[in-house]
Amino acid sequence: MKRDQLIERVKAEMPERRWLHTEGVMAAAVVLAERFGEDAERAELAAILHDVAKYWPVDRMELIISEQHLPGDLLAYDKELWHAPVGAWVAQHEFGVTDNEVLDAIRYHTSGRSGMSKLEKIVWLADYIEPGRDFPGVDRIRELSAKNLEESMLAAFDNTIAFLIAKGKRIYPLTIDARNDLIQHIKGG
Amino acid sequence: MKRDQLIERVKAEMPERRWLHTEGVMAAAVVLAERFGEDAERAELAAILHDVAKYWPVDRMELIISEQHLPGDLLAYDKELWHAPVGAWVAQHEFGVTDNEVLDAIRYHTSGRSGMSKLEKIVWLADYIEPGRDFPGVDRIRELSAKNLEESMLAAFDNTIAFLIAKGKRIYPLTIDARNDLIQHIKGG
Repeated sequence: MKRDQLIERVKAEMPERRWLHTEGVMAAAVVLAERFGEDAERAELAAILHDVAKYWPVDRMELIISEQHLPGDLLAYDKELWHAPVGAWVAQHEFGVTDNEVLDAIRYHTSGRSGMSKLEKIVWLADYIEPGRDFPGVDRIRELSAKNLEESMLAAFDNTIAFLIAKGKRIYPLTIDARNDLIQHIKGG
Repeated sequence: MKRDQLIERVKAEMPERRWLHTEGVMAAAVVLAERFGEDAERAELAAILHDVAKYWPVDRMELIISEQHLPGDLLAYDKELWHAPVGAWVAQHEFGVTDNEVLDAIRYHTSGRSGMSKLEKIVWLADYIEPGRDFPGVDRIRELSAKNLEESMLAAFDNTIAFLIAKGKRIYPLTIDARNDLIQHIKGG
């Protein structure tokens, strides 16, 4: 599928303001890819598709999670997490994406996980710092991202976990694995 | 082993100030057991032994963790966590404790876990709020513990996780499981 055609189709899956967010993630992902030595085209492809399932009805996401054997423990956690693995499934089966790293970058763009590839990290961070984001702490993370991919991600995970604690929400285990793994990497040199 | 004899032997395993902490945990565990309907004698037994391995040399703990097939992932996490499962092993094999719930209360008194028994919860919380503890937030958790075991634990887990984040330390997955499980219980009624 050509880039323009893909963009038109994904755009149709979401409200205007979410498409603006997606454009922000595309731009941020390209910048980060160039900065940290990753393929900008793959980063942009993952960014275009990362929220493709975000506005799907909950029932439709739930059906895909159970019928397609996506991780079942997701269903016990916040629905905000569901669109990422569902989006990866949609990217593969409805948009013909075959690049597994791109699919994983979509799949883990919300939770993160241990052992993320550089592409996954870039898409995860781009989603966090894209120009449309405006929440406490985001500017500091943008500044950190100018220099260090993993340290800026660690600050972003810390921010996310603090937010979930303040809201009394549960924390998906992969998110803790992701943060633990980053600390291991940063400290291990 | 008689209570007095047990106390003398455990006391010999640690410096005076840590024994004072243990006495505080014993007292708090008895109060919480009476308050929330648990056997005070078992709660006190777990409290007496909970830190038995706290001052063991790291090498000796490491040996027990690997030779006795305690969870190996512990070795990748903060050494502060090690004395709890090692202590349970010591309580069973060197002090002849056979009550599995008492052993689990020792084993999980630092990390917590999902599906804690009431006894485990009481020992975990007693360790957190015993009268000798003095850190930011402990008084609020003491107040909460007068009314609700699980809500006070949730506040304590939140405090611990915030502390680990501020210190840039990794978070042991069982701790997140414990907090997630508490939220599930509290919200589920």
